[in-house]
Amino acid sequence: MNLLNGGEADYVVTGAWSKRSVEDAVAYGKINIAASSEAEKFTNVPAYSSWKLNKNAAYLHICTNETINGVEFDGLPESGDVPIVADMSSHILSRPIDVTQYGVIYGGAQKNIGPAGLCIVIVREDLLGKASPLTPAVFNWKTQAENQSMINTPPTYSIYIAGLVFEWLLAQGGVAAIEKVNIAKANLLYDYIDSTDFYVNNVALKNRSRMNIPFFLKDESLNDAFLKGAEANGLLQLKGHRMVGGMRASIYNAMPIEGVQALISYMQAFESAH
Amino acid sequence: MNLLNGGEADYVVTGAWSKRSVEDAVAYGKINIAASSEAEKFTNVPAYSSWKLNKNAAYLHICTNETINGVEFDGLPESGDVPIVADMSSHILSRPIDVTQYGVIYGGAQKNIGPAGLCIVIVREDLLGKASPLTPAVFNWKTQAENQSMINTPPTYSIYIAGLVFEWLLAQGGVAAIEKVNIAKANLLYDYIDSTDFYVNNVALKNRSRMNIPFFLKDESLNDAFLKGAEANGLLQLKGHRMVGGMRASIYNAMPIEGVQALISYMQAFESAH
Repeated sequence: MNLLNGGEADYVVTGAWSKRSVEDAVAYGKINIAASSEAEKFTNVPAYSSWKLNKNAAYLHICTNETINGVEFDGLPESGDVPIVADMSSHILSRPIDVTQYGVIYGGAQKNIGPAGLCIVIVREDLLGKASPLTPAVFNWKTQAENQSMINTPPTYSIYIAGLVFEWLLAQGGVAAIEKVNIAKANLLYDYIDSTDFYVNNVALKNRSRMNIPFFLKDESLNDAFLKGAEANGLLQLKGHRMVGGMRASIYNAMPIEGVQALISYMQAFESAH
Repeated sequence: MNLLNGGEADYVVTGAWSKRSVEDAVAYGKINIAASSEAEKFTNVPAYSSWKLNKNAAYLHICTNETINGVEFDGLPESGDVPIVADMSSHILSRPIDVTQYGVIYGGAQKNIGPAGLCIVIVREDLLGKASPLTPAVFNWKTQAENQSMINTPPTYSIYIAGLVFEWLLAQGGVAAIEKVNIAKANLLYDYIDSTDFYVNNVALKNRSRMNIPFFLKDESLNDAFLKGAEANGLLQLKGHRMVGGMRASIYNAMPIEGVQALISYMQAFESAH
C-alpha cells in the first residue's frame, strides 16, 4: 500500500513468511516471483544469478530470515535502482546490517526487540509519499513519519520494554558483540547435528539461520518421546512448525549459550538411549 | 474498509475523535455528515430528531464518548436497518451496554482495558465478509474472525495484562458495580464545578461524560499556576487537550473516588487562594 500502488513488484520466496507476503501483496498490483525455493522445500536462498528481476519493479521484497524454515540470507543481490524491502522480523539486532543497502526494513518486535504488537519500519526518505490514498493512516509511512510514529497513541508499554531490551543489548556490547555469541551458539548446535546420523538439518550450509534451527530425527516415530523428554528437562517449544514438522530450536539474542549446551546434552542423551 | 467498500455511510460528529473518523473514512466512499455539534464547539450530542439519516447508508458511525471534549451519548438514535458502528474507546467497560443494539463496537484498550496497542472489535456476524479486497489481512474482520484474532501473532503481553484488568473488574463486582462508582465520581466533580463561578464545564447536562471531565478556570491567566500547584499535589495530566484548552480530569475505572476527592480539595483550596 505504501510503495506498489497498482504497479509491479518482485518477490523472492524462501519460506513461509515470504510466501505469506506474496499472498498479502497480490491484491495491490502485479507481483512477479523473481525466485523461489519452494520446490526444494525452502532449504536455501536461490543463487542470486538465477533471480528474474524486473527493472520496472517498485521494489524487490525478501525475507532475510525465515523463522519457520530456518533459512537466512548470506548477502544481498544486485538490484540496481530497485529498492530492496526486507522483512527482518526474526533476525533484526542479531547481527550488524548496513541499512543503506535497503529501501525499507521492517519487522515485528517479538524476537529480538520486545513484546509482540510492536512493529518497526525503517524507510529511506525518498520512498515516503508513494502510498495509495486507500492506505489506513496508521499504516501510512509518510503520515507516521510526519507524526513521529504517533498518529494514534502508540503501544507505549511495549516501547518501554523495547527500551529496556536495547539497554540490555548495549550492556552486552551491542549488535557486533551479540553477533559473536549468536555465531558461537549456532555453530555449536549445527556442528553437533552434522556430527551424527540421528538428527538432520536440511538447509544449505550458507543459508543456515543463526536464529532458528529446524532439525529432524531420522526416526520420526521418536518425535513424541523426544519432545516429552525435552519438556521434562526444561527445554520448551521445540516442536517444529506444523508446516515443516520435526523440531525447531529458536535461539534468539535472549537465549544464553548455556541453553544451547543444555539442548545438545539432552539430544546426546536421547540419541544414546535410542 | 470492512463495510463501506465504495458505498455511502452516515457519520455524526460530536468531537475530535468522530471528526478524525470522518477524515479517515472519506477515501473509502461517500460520507454524509448526519449531524454535527462543531458549531457549538462540541458541547453536546445533537438531538436525534435532527439527524439527517440516509436509509442506504452501509452504517451509521458515532463515537459514544469523546475523550477530548468530554461528551458522552445518553442513548441511541433509531437507525432502522442501518447498523450502528460505535467507537467506544474511552468509555467501554465503564457502564453496561446492550451489544445487540450495535452492528460494530470498537475501541483502543488504553482506557479501561489494558495497554495501548491492543484494540477490541465486536462485529455482528452478518456484517463480516463485506470487506474491500484491499483490506490488509490484520484489519480484515472476517479473516481475523476465522483465525481467532490470530492471523499474525497478536499482542500477547497486552492481552495478558487485559486479562488481569478483567479479573480486577470482576472482583469489583463487574461493569454494573463499577458504573455506580463512576456515577458517584462524576457527580462529585460536576456538582462541585457547578457550585462555583470559579470553574466551568460547558457540556450539556445530558451529555456530560463520566470518564472525561473538561473544565475551564474563569480566569484563564491562572491556568499555569493551577497546573503547577496540581502537580505539586500529585494531581497529574490535568492540562486539557490543545484543541480544547483549559483542564481535563480523566477519571477512568482505575481512578478511585479518593482521587476525585483529592482533586476537588485542591480545586477548592486554589479557588480560596485566588
